[in-house]
Amino acid sequence: MSLTPFDFTVTHTEGRARRGRMRTAHGEVETPAFMPVGTQGAVKGVTHRDLESLGAEILLSNTYHLYLRPGDDLIARRGGLHRFIGWAKPILTDSGGYQVFSLAARRTIDEQGAHFRSHLDGSAHSLTPEKAADIQAQLGSDIAMVLDECLAHPADLDAAGQSMARTLRWARRGRDRFLALRDGLAPGVAISNPGQAQFGIVQGSVFPSLREESARQTVEIGFDAYAIGGLSVGEPAEVMYEMVSRTTPGLPADRPRYLMGTGTPGDLVESVARGVDLFDCVLPTRNARNGQLFTSEGRINIRNARYAEDDRPPDPVCKCYTCATCSRAYLRHLHMANEINSSTLNTLHNLNFYLDTLRRIRDAIAFGRFESFRLAFHQSLSRQPHDS
Amino acid sequence: MSLTPFDFTVTHTEGRARRGRMRTAHGEVETPAFMPVGTQGAVKGVTHRDLESLGAEILLSNTYHLYLRPGDDLIARRGGLHRFIGWAKPILTDSGGYQVFSLAARRTIDEQGAHFRSHLDGSAHSLTPEKAADIQAQLGSDIAMVLDECLAHPADLDAAGQSMARTLRWARRGRDRFLALRDGLAPGVAISNPGQAQFGIVQGSVFPSLREESARQTVEIGFDAYAIGGLSVGEPAEVMYEMVSRTTPGLPADRPRYLMGTGTPGDLVESVARGVDLFDCVLPTRNARNGQLFTSEGRINIRNARYAEDDRPPDPVCKCYTCATCSRAYLRHLHMANEINSSTLNTLHNLNFYLDTLRRIRDAIAFGRFESFRLAFHQSLSRQPHDS
Repeated sequence: MSLTPFDFTVTHTEGRARRGRMRTAHGEVETPAFMPVGTQGAVKGVTHRDLESLGAEILLSNTYHLYLRPGDDLIARRGGLHRFIGWAKPILTDSGGYQVFSLAARRTIDEQGAHFRSHLDGSAHSLTPEKAADIQAQLGSDIAMVLDECLAHPADLDAAGQSMARTLRWARRGRDRFLALRDGLAPGVAISNPGQAQFGIVQGSVFPSLREESARQTVEIGFDAYAIGGLSVGEPAEVMYEMVSRTTPGLPADRPRYLMGTGTPGDLVESVARGVDLFDCVLPTRNARNGQLFTSEGRINIRNARYAEDDRPPDPVCKCYTCATCSRAYLRHLHMANEINSSTLNTLHNLNFYLDTLRRIRDAIAFGRFESFRLAFHQSLSRQPHDS
Repeated sequence: MSLTPFDFTVTHTEGRARRGRMRTAHGEVETPAFMPVGTQGAVKGVTHRDLESLGAEILLSNTYHLYLRPGDDLIARRGGLHRFIGWAKPILTDSGGYQVFSLAARRTIDEQGAHFRSHLDGSAHSLTPEKAADIQAQLGSDIAMVLDECLAHPADLDAAGQSMARTLRWARRGRDRFLALRDGLAPGVAISNPGQAQFGIVQGSVFPSLREESARQTVEIGFDAYAIGGLSVGEPAEVMYEMVSRTTPGLPADRPRYLMGTGTPGDLVESVARGVDLFDCVLPTRNARNGQLFTSEGRINIRNARYAEDDRPPDPVCKCYTCATCSRAYLRHLHMANEINSSTLNTLHNLNFYLDTLRRIRDAIAFGRFESFRLAFHQSLSRQPHDS
């Protein structure tokens, strides 16, 4: 018997694209879904109420950052991440592994786990599969991710195979620890969310045979659902699509599939076409802060001098608050003047573009029009050249 | 016949405190009123819709900044500041003088005006009384301020008297130019707001006799209303209150009185008691970004370690979004993590505190309870020691 309310129902399919509903301890999420990234318990520049009004149904938060500051112990004492940050809807936490590989100082990896120094104060820490499960139990996210090894791209077949094998050994340890936590066999760890689910992660770099093998063995371990990791790390988009195509058939049809850290709006459409249900990415939020806006006609960089006297909204067909009230000229001014509101207004728009794209994808699948949507989407984006 | 719709009606008085209604080309403002500062056409960290939901009825924007970037010509071509920034309610612009004195590089002052180099790119500019009127005509604010000379504090009687006399000569030139602009006698300057009003400014440093003389002569020139400048520049609060007390009786009772650049919540209450109707100040917004929150029990600095595990809202009696959804612990975390949302959430709260204080002041005057409100307000603020 499962203690978690985690569940997933596919309500419509078109080809390999699926529309569905994912149930978590903090409510339901319509899929395919995009998860805005709230690294430190906040989506940079956007309040929770604005996120909700944009239609965000689930947030991603970063275990590495919250573990280091303010600490998972402190958050557990506050009643968990939902109560601490005041967000009542679902939250997914990553395992912390990717950030250890990309942010931490003097990291070493061995069979036990990752050993590193904090990028904040240089303090020494270890992240093991067990520790990653413990931290996330204390955070009390609705979906915890198992610790995987993040391989640098490119890697050769041999290195990728060894890394995949280690990831599988870590997955077994991570799953065992998660089940022990669920069964009350881990004294000293606060269980902030008894309904937490845990996702496994498929690795295997750009090698189809490894991807298939990783999927098969990860499913054998048995998680609540499965993610595809190690993509969007520098490989061509076509290679990523191919890896997704080779992975999703090996994942259970009745479980959501989460493509980690991806991608452009076009990537999302292509990945949905290959059977993916969940996405997260910093592109809409990070690029917004750098002045890049996603629009129905491609990306524009608001710093560009050509927008200095452009009275049009960023995207004439967009219904978001930014497009309803701000001209490109005003947004360019705010960006050039380093105003905080530049980040807020750009982020509101970019997140709306992403969340609205997913909404349109879901509608299209429900009405059996996903293939024509996909075609029209790519044509629209290629209608005019993007800003450099 | 006046072309401007500018008007002011006192609806209630209690002692020297007044409640009233100020009419401008972009709508009415209930007074006493606080104007949030949107230096570059945006209140840092807060969108216009959030400002409106806080009850802000008028914004202040800075002529110096907008003149340098993006330029008053560009804003005039966009139809004026209201259209450029998407704010349909009243806007007051300062003259730019204070920023020239405080921000610009290599400034020199002579009878003609202020000559300086931009703090952005070092370019050379002059700001004269005529130029200040022209720039604000192009911006199209509802209330333009005349250019005054901003004297450093402390100044002796002789220097203060000479500066006051120059400010009066500039006031005459600024008023003449404003009337010429209004009468269509200034070709080459775009009139973005035909209903713009212009306020004169009383100077005179900390010398009551100069303040009284400045008020008398400024009123003689004849402006739509009058401001008290040159205070909140380092003098003790009691001296400021005394200067306000000595100035307001010399200003017309049927015109609003604007105390520039002030101050703490307590300063606002004390100045209302002395007959002031309008305020602006960067304290609530700037201090918010530095982690200082104004509450009904005094100021708290959210960085303080004592708040790390404090689950209470910043101000238990406050109804703002921040207090309704965020604990001190979460706000401290966001501040320590340098999250943009720290600025946004703190600013929302501080502006709500200021705007709500003015709302309570207006209600108290309407019901003849201002004196008891004033007493209770100061008692409440002194109930516990402020954070350092």
